[in-house]
Amino acid sequence: MITLSSIRAAAEVIAPHVVRTPLLPFGSGWLKPESLQPIGAFKLRGALNALARLEDRSRGVVAYSSGNHAQAVAYAARLHGVPAAIVMPSNTPEVKVEATRALGAEVFIVGITERVQRAEELVAERGAALIPPFDHPDVIAGQGTIGLEVLADLPSADVVVVPMSGGGLISGVATAIKSIKPEVRVIGAEPALAGDVAASLRAGQLVRWDPVERARTVADALRDEPSELTWAHISAYVDDVVTVTEEEILGAVAALARQARLVAEPSGAVAVAALAKLAGAGTGVAVVSGGNIDPALLARLLAA
Amino acid sequence: MITLSSIRAAAEVIAPHVVRTPLLPFGSGWLKPESLQPIGAFKLRGALNALARLEDRSRGVVAYSSGNHAQAVAYAARLHGVPAAIVMPSNTPEVKVEATRALGAEVFIVGITERVQRAEELVAERGAALIPPFDHPDVIAGQGTIGLEVLADLPSADVVVVPMSGGGLISGVATAIKSIKPEVRVIGAEPALAGDVAASLRAGQLVRWDPVERARTVADALRDEPSELTWAHISAYVDDVVTVTEEEILGAVAALARQARLVAEPSGAVAVAALAKLAGAGTGVAVVSGGNIDPALLARLLAA
Repeated sequence: MITLSSIRAAAEVIAPHVVRTPLLPFGSGWLKPESLQPIGAFKLRGALNALARLEDRSRGVVAYSSGNHAQAVAYAARLHGVPAAIVMPSNTPEVKVEATRALGAEVFIVGITERVQRAEELVAERGAALIPPFDHPDVIAGQGTIGLEVLADLPSADVVVVPMSGGGLISGVATAIKSIKPEVRVIGAEPALAGDVAASLRAGQLVRWDPVERARTVADALRDEPSELTWAHISAYVDDVVTVTEEEILGAVAALARQARLVAEPSGAVAVAALAKLAGAGTGVAVVSGGNIDPALLARLLAA
Repeated sequence: MITLSSIRAAAEVIAPHVVRTPLLPFGSGWLKPESLQPIGAFKLRGALNALARLEDRSRGVVAYSSGNHAQAVAYAARLHGVPAAIVMPSNTPEVKVEATRALGAEVFIVGITERVQRAEELVAERGAALIPPFDHPDVIAGQGTIGLEVLADLPSADVVVVPMSGGGLISGVATAIKSIKPEVRVIGAEPALAGDVAASLRAGQLVRWDPVERARTVADALRDEPSELTWAHISAYVDDVVTVTEEEILGAVAALARQARLVAEPSGAVAVAALAKLAGAGTGVAVVSGGNIDPALLARLLAA
């Protein structure tokens, strides 16, 4: 389990390179817009902390990801002047491949089932360090800095809602919040179509859903599942999970653009949709985790 | 002329009620996203300061505006628990009328040429205080707080680009910056179709353009012209003006949504378009002044 002191240490390490996102009023609650980070997602926090804490990064870093973690590691590596090799599945949208290359990373396109193996080969061949998307204490500690900032900016917060996929974000945020102020409720938010953590909390143990099932949701960054490490944090610290429909997710994307002037991706709007269902829970904060939406999808939602 | 100390005093007055907007990296420069203020525009700063400094606000406040100033005054009045009467021209989009009413203001719809007169009548009838959109020292001092924040967050800034219309925003920002660090260049940004201040600076005196000419630009919040008060600040402090085309403005709106995950209105993107034309000018900051765009227009720009 990670500790509050590791999160506080991460905050110092990443401060020069991340945006200190403000809380924005939204309806009767607040937003923590991590979509405003340089790569458009909170992932930069964990990647920066993990990379900075590597004992030897001289031979570069490796990551596998089709999404925001790819760009986070590429960005962090460029900042530290080390090479980054990113393994992406062949169904990754070209725009994300190009964005990762534009950050100076070497991209390896492989079949979706070969991602992990190819990354491990690169680690072995190069002596490079693997930065996993969530299953690592330094990554979790980096994401936890969001919890410190929420409590610092809004000491009166009663509930903090955090989207869940692999669980790195909520593990860090919940550790920070429960260590400082245990009476603040930490609520996970999931698409109902990828509601495996909600099912796990009900069952009292980690329930695994078929990846094909989890892949149905439009929230494409929330299709992963917890590891043993993140489940340990989730089961210890998370008070409850709220699941939301696809319609609620897309409605939240549109509301964020219209009322908060934020471009959010569907995954980034899931906690906002969940917070809207928690009326009467007191002062709430929703983490807007990312903003890398397909512009054509946003256009359709705004034209509707 | 307003002073640095009045801006510093304004910063203390408004701090509890405005978002402390961060600087966001964007290309080789930075953005100051005032679009993230509660009403979606910097106007809240000036309205809050002016309202807080009224000697007697017991009989309420009056404003005339079809745009962001209307909502700024309504929002500030509600915060302070005083009635607000807002005079809006009959061509104001219904969505803006409703947004102003939703903030608790009483809205008076009049013909476009009767706005000022009707506002003055309301002031006389009610003993209420008029809060002008830019032609007032307290309003200018409130907007100037943006300049303090830019210098605090980015001491290495070389150039700050600010959109211009009535000139309240740039008057305040330029006063703050030139008082603290005169070597930082303050550049105004205007649509070429409403380039009256650029023409004024070239002529060395306030040049007035026909309102019909100024109304051609898509940047509907930048169709006003300076007063004697704001011109005094502009001519004293502004180093230069960059004008941008309509195409450059709309391109900047799309780039802000795609690359900075910000919803900006055309007027709010004008300084971003201008900064893009200042390559080689050093470390630049563009003020994104507002985000209240017609969602259908943003949808069209993103679908293109």
